[in-house]
Amino acid sequence: MRIRKKPWAEEELAQNDHVMKNAEALKGKWREYFGNDNPIYVEIGCGKGGFIRKNAEAYPHINFVGIERNLSVVAVAARRTTEELPNLALVWDDAKKLSDFFEVGEFQRLYLNFSDPWPKKRQYKRRLTYRGYLQSYREAFGDKGEIFFKTDNRNLFEFSLNEFCADNWKLSNISLDLHNSDYEGNIMTEYEEKFSSQGMPIYRLEARYGMEEEQKKD
Amino acid sequence: MRIRKKPWAEEELAQNDHVMKNAEALKGKWREYFGNDNPIYVEIGCGKGGFIRKNAEAYPHINFVGIERNLSVVAVAARRTTEELPNLALVWDDAKKLSDFFEVGEFQRLYLNFSDPWPKKRQYKRRLTYRGYLQSYREAFGDKGEIFFKTDNRNLFEFSLNEFCADNWKLSNISLDLHNSDYEGNIMTEYEEKFSSQGMPIYRLEARYGMEEEQKKD
Ligand SMILES: C[S@@+](CC[C@H](N)C(=O)[O-])C[C@H]1O[C@@H](n2cnc3c(N)ncnc32)[C@H](O)[C@@H]1O
Ligand SMILES: C[S@@+](CC[C@H](N)C(=O)[O-])C[C@H]1O[C@@H](n2cnc3c(N)ncnc32)[C@H](O)[C@@H]1O
Repeated sequence: MRIRKKPWAEEELAQNDHVMKNAEALKGKWREYFGNDNPIYVEIGCGKGGFIRKNAEAYPHINFVGIERNLSVVAVAARRTTEELPNLALVWDDAKKLSDFFEVGEFQRLYLNFSDPWPKKRQYKRRLTYRGYLQSYREAFGDKGEIFFKTDNRNLFEFSLNEFCADNWKLSNISLDLHNSDYEGNIMTEYEEKFSSQGMPIYRLEARYGMEEEQKKD
Repeated sequence: MRIRKKPWAEEELAQNDHVMKNAEALKGKWREYFGNDNPIYVEIGCGKGGFIRKNAEAYPHINFVGIERNLSVVAVAARRTTEELPNLALVWDDAKKLSDFFEVGEFQRLYLNFSDPWPKKRQYKRRLTYRGYLQSYREAFGDKGEIFFKTDNRNLFEFSLNEFCADNWKLSNISLDLHNSDYEGNIMTEYEEKFSSQGMPIYRLEARYGMEEEQKKD
C-alpha cells in the first residue's frame, strides 16, 4: 500500500488536520483529542469519506473516526473534509490494528459500508464480517458494542448474516432493499450512490451484543 | 373454508387413510398412532403436499404431519399420497389449533414453506412468522425447537429475519438464493418449482432455540 508513491496524496495527508499522524499515540486519549466525552463511532474502510463526513455534519455531538488503508482514497477523503468538522478524524492505516488505536471500550459503534466482498470461496477469512473479525471487534468493544453494516453484495450479506448469527450477535433492522424500506435518515456512501442509482438493492443490518436494555428503550 | 362444498374433495378426505379424521383425539398419542418413537416433523400450510410427501419417502425414520386448511388443496395432497407411506399424516385444519393437536414437545421440527406473504403493512400479524406465531410455536415446542422456513418473497423473508431475531431464535444456514448455494439435499415444494423455474431467488433459513449443543454436533 505504502509502496506506490503518490506525492499529492501523501502531501494531502501530511498537511490535513483531520488526518491523524500517529493514531497509536491516541490510544486511550481520544476523548482528550476531541476535547469532550461524546460517543465515538468508527468506520472501517471509509473510502472517500462521504458517509462519515455527512454523519459528522449531521451529528455534531458524536465523534467519528474513519479508518482507510488505501492511500489515494483516504487522501480524497481528507481533501474533501474542508469544512470545520472538529468531530471527524481520519486514520490512514489497516483496521487490523484497531486495538493499537483504541483502548477497550473507547469507541461504541462500528460502521462497515460496502466492504470488499472477497468473492472467492477460499477468501472468506478476509471478509470484514468473518467471525474472526467479529471476535476482534468484540475484543475492542469490551462489554457491549454495535455494528452497522451495509452492502450491495448479496453473497457478502448472506455470509455476514450467517457469521453474525453464528457469533451470537443480536440482529435488528435487517433490510434486503434499504432504498425501498421504511428506514429513515439513511446517509449514503459513495458506493451506495453508485449502486443504488443502477437500481441494485442495498442490504443493511444492525448487530449488537450486551445492549439488550438500551435497545428496548429505542 | 368449510362452507363452499367440494364433494370430490370432501370424499377424498373421508376415504383417504393418510387424512386424520380427528386430529384433536391424537393429541399426546401420535407415537401410538405412528407405532414408533421416531421424531415428528410438522409442516404448516403443506399445500398440495409435494414437499412433505417427498420428505416422507426420503426419511422413513421420521414421521411427518402436514397441516393445511384449504379443502381443495389438501384434497389434492391426499389424492397424491397413494404410495405406502405410513410415516405421513395429513390434517385438514387451521394451524392456529396446533396446541389442540399436539402435546407440548410432541413434535420436534416445524416447516413453513412459501407461507402466504400478506403483503399489506397492516396485515403483518397474519404472517406465519409474526412474533405472535413464533411465540405460539415456542409454546408448542416446549424446551427446544427448530423451524425451517423457505419463501420466494423477499419482503416476507426480510420481515421473518427480523421477527426471528427479535424473538431470540438462533439462525443458521441463511440463504438469499438457495438454488445457487451450497445447500445440499433441498426438497422442492410446488410453489418453489414454479418460482425457481422463473429464475426467482428462493430464500431460506433455519431457526432454533434451546439446541445450542445439538447444533454444534452437526
Ligand atoms: C468497496 S470500498 C467502499 C468504500 C466506502 N465505504 C463506500 O461505501 O463508498 C472498501 C474500502 O475498504 C477499504 N478497506 C478494506 N479493508 C480494510 C482494512 N482492513 N482497513 C482499512 N480499510 C480497509 C478499502 O481500501 C476500500 O477503500
Ligand atoms: C402459498 S401456499 C404454499 C403451499 C406449499 N407450502 C408450497 O410451498 O407449495 C400457502 C398455503 O398455506 C396454507 N395456510 C396458510 N395459513 C394456514 C394456517 N393457519 N393453517 C393451515 N394452512 C394454512 C394456505 O391454505 C396455502 O395452501
